[in-house]
Amino acid sequence: MSDASQRPEARAPRGFIDRRARDLAAEREILTRVSAVYERYGFEALDTGAFEYADALGKFLPDADRPNEGVFALQDDDEQWMALRYDLTAPLARFVAQHWETLPKPFRRYAFGPVWRNEKPGPGRYREFVQCDADTVGSARPEADAEIIAMAAEGLGAAGLPTGAYVIKINNRKLLNGLLATAGVTTEGQKLAVLRAVDKLDRLGPDGVRLLLGEGRKDESGAFTKGAGLDAKSAQAVLAFTAAGVAGSRSETLDAIARVIGGSAEGDEGLEELSRIERALTGLGVGADQAIFDPSVVRGLEYYTGAVFEAELLLETTDDKGEPVRFGSVGGGGRYDDLVARFTGERTPATGFSFGVSRLASALRAAGRDLGGASRGPVVVIAFSQDDMGAYFQLVGELRAAGIAAEVYLGGSGMKAQMKYADRRMSPAAVILGGDEIAAGTVTVKDLDLGRALSAGVTDNAAWRTERPGQQTIPRGELITALRRILEA
Amino acid sequence: MSDASQRPEARAPRGFIDRRARDLAAEREILTRVSAVYERYGFEALDTGAFEYADALGKFLPDADRPNEGVFALQDDDEQWMALRYDLTAPLARFVAQHWETLPKPFRRYAFGPVWRNEKPGPGRYREFVQCDADTVGSARPEADAEIIAMAAEGLGAAGLPTGAYVIKINNRKLLNGLLATAGVTTEGQKLAVLRAVDKLDRLGPDGVRLLLGEGRKDESGAFTKGAGLDAKSAQAVLAFTAAGVAGSRSETLDAIARVIGGSAEGDEGLEELSRIERALTGLGVGADQAIFDPSVVRGLEYYTGAVFEAELLLETTDDKGEPVRFGSVGGGGRYDDLVARFTGERTPATGFSFGVSRLASALRAAGRDLGGASRGPVVVIAFSQDDMGAYFQLVGELRAAGIAAEVYLGGSGMKAQMKYADRRMSPAAVILGGDEIAAGTVTVKDLDLGRALSAGVTDNAAWRTERPGQQTIPRGELITALRRILEA
Repeated sequence: MSDASQRPEARAPRGFIDRRARDLAAEREILTRVSAVYERYGFEALDTGAFEYADALGKFLPDADRPNEGVFALQDDDEQWMALRYDLTAPLARFVAQHWETLPKPFRRYAFGPVWRNEKPGPGRYREFVQCDADTVGSARPEADAEIIAMAAEGLGAAGLPTGAYVIKINNRKLLNGLLATAGVTTEGQKLAVLRAVDKLDRLGPDGVRLLLGEGRKDESGAFTKGAGLDAKSAQAVLAFTAAGVAGSRSETLDAIARVIGGSAEGDEGLEELSRIERALTGLGVGADQAIFDPSVVRGLEYYTGAVFEAELLLETTDDKGEPVRFGSVGGGGRYDDLVARFTGERTPATGFSFGVSRLASALRAAGRDLGGASRGPVVVIAFSQDDMGAYFQLVGELRAAGIAAEVYLGGSGMKAQMKYADRRMSPAAVILGGDEIAAGTVTVKDLDLGRALSAGVTDNAAWRTERPGQQTIPRGELITALRRILEA
Repeated sequence: MSDASQRPEARAPRGFIDRRARDLAAEREILTRVSAVYERYGFEALDTGAFEYADALGKFLPDADRPNEGVFALQDDDEQWMALRYDLTAPLARFVAQHWETLPKPFRRYAFGPVWRNEKPGPGRYREFVQCDADTVGSARPEADAEIIAMAAEGLGAAGLPTGAYVIKINNRKLLNGLLATAGVTTEGQKLAVLRAVDKLDRLGPDGVRLLLGEGRKDESGAFTKGAGLDAKSAQAVLAFTAAGVAGSRSETLDAIARVIGGSAEGDEGLEELSRIERALTGLGVGADQAIFDPSVVRGLEYYTGAVFEAELLLETTDDKGEPVRFGSVGGGGRYDDLVARFTGERTPATGFSFGVSRLASALRAAGRDLGGASRGPVVVIAFSQDDMGAYFQLVGELRAAGIAAEVYLGGSGMKAQMKYADRRMSPAAVILGGDEIAAGTVTVKDLDLGRALSAGVTDNAAWRTERPGQQTIPRGELITALRRILEA
């Protein structure tokens, strides 16, 4: 072959990963189950292409100097700039604007597929990942938000998260605006400072947030963060507002919020929307153990125009070093009414929910519900002699017809390497069909699951050997039954 | 909103398409069924990223002037060129070379996903499409080819092509080389001319091919194509070789080929490989109605190094104008032993099969087996009054829990628009839950499938109306049963 120095190095581009059977099995299972839920809710599948024209993506218009800022962009041979989609919402807006006349309205669609971000990769941070979105375009009704929330909850449940392992927190930008009006906040800078302070509630507690709402706060290191400059009464209103979420039922939360901001026009509008969401959720049977109102949720409020949702994992999980960590958000969404208008000039109401599929798979693993666990290797038929290949293939044909994954070893190595191969494949069993067995109409089965269990020390050697022999020679006609016993053990 | 001239036009980039529910349902169903077959054969799933470094893709090294020749390429911020994969084989070769030490060997993997080609788009010719591949890397045994062939046949069957609707044609480059040696062909130019002549057998018949193998052929327009320049005896050997495929069983074909080229060293090697493939196929129960030897298959022979396969649809189908057309190939593959060596310097035997998912979906449609047919809209609950929203949602909750796709209409329009919406969604039924119905504990069901059947004139109006009322008011408790009857009709 050619000079080694001429050969390319075999490596994947930075921030791109290869995924093998176990991870893929988990992610496909999530998508299958979630898709079934979304279709039951009347959402139809849509798949747009990987590329959009850069002007249609909007957010990141490439310029000649930095064409790849944030996205992967390139110039087509007709000089137009195209970029790989960085989410599934921008392509939806383009699709809806393009086909508005002929679409059923409201348009309910779900989509999943890879998205690409041209960012600096890091641990657990990739430049390509799979998202799954569902959106309703063309309905201003709060009930459309409620449907999305109920569906997200049912989707998380179908994927394997038990009730109690997650909660969907709901807020509304209009409530925040009502609160800010009540608290006398008018400038954009003060508004942002208030939102940022509220976002730290989990970490700093009410007293820390009170400082940030007022003059400011000095942290342990002595560093000082300037506050929002609210007076004590306004700061108290903000804290009362954020505390309303822990009141109890959804209706009680709404009452508590109303006591703080009731009377402000935009606040009342937000309250009316949330109470319609509440009635629809109750009609759909979604309890407070699945979805709550939480006025302290501020993430994404600058992007969304009305309701905002965040799905949070409630389990305490541990990191690589065994330290307890909060897993945090597994998805989110909300109402956005401006995206389609970029194309059409007409404001079009829309609401949706999005989650990262790998992240949900990690959440499920953290919750002890790894969907990839079922992925295992095939039964391996050991190859001894070229003359008996026909017999081996007949055997695997029978096993496959019975629904058992199986293959003949097709490498060039001997018995030991073949057993090692079966072990690397996580095969449940190896089947030996030597000349003697063929003559006698028998077959020998090696239980590799047992071997693995024994070598991992998870079972008592002697007891297992009695009731479940590691290797047995049986009549050929009993093979499928014997293998099923191993597979189901 | 902003000035219309500032607004981007909503359109997808050239050569990229949006796919809606029906097409997606068909393609997903194909992938689900084929994946199940491939896993039963012991092939494991692998998913590599969309990008590869351009040097790893090999074929299309971008140069500064034409960086996008054939592929979509861009320069990463560390100056390295990356390109979107144009098939699934090149990423496999990179992956295998990168992880060779730790992989089970032979490595059997399948993969599906989009590939991208930066070519001029045309009707039915896209710049992004989904491929599905299965390959075995690290086995030189012809039985590995046989497994791929058997699996491809079973995959096509599982996807819905009945036996008799397709056949997998098998050839071997070594036979061709043996034939060329027998026919005294030595120059590369003459060799290509012979292959090109053989490739026209379907269109020109043996007499036309004989002319092209000899001095040349003048077509109806008077244009002259120069021939390969073989003498009559050599041309006869080539024709006898290509005719061997119609002899009958696979063994008979091999015998017929041996009579023409037996004795040439490379030809005998090819014959030995095919006879081992034949024995394995027979062991696996793959009959001559699914896979045959056909020496006239020459497509891809320059790329492949041994066996070559082509899956062909046998149905006569019609084009848009109702003209009969041959659908042709729905997939292909073969043995390639040089791809991994690009990285490692060591020749690594490999064999695989690939098909385009949209193309197979088209083939299934042509064969009257459209898998997307089952995709239909949800039951639509008509929304009359905001006050009854809770009742509507309770109802759709019940239907979904019973596995019936359903939704409340959430647009802002009246009854007529709601019925039009249900029709556009291809809903099987609309459910009316007005104030009277709620008070009486009843519900009204409109059978929309019936309405569509009547308006299409496919049934006798009066007879249907008797046994299957278009609209009926029934007790609320009987709704699920009534809807199931409509869905199953």
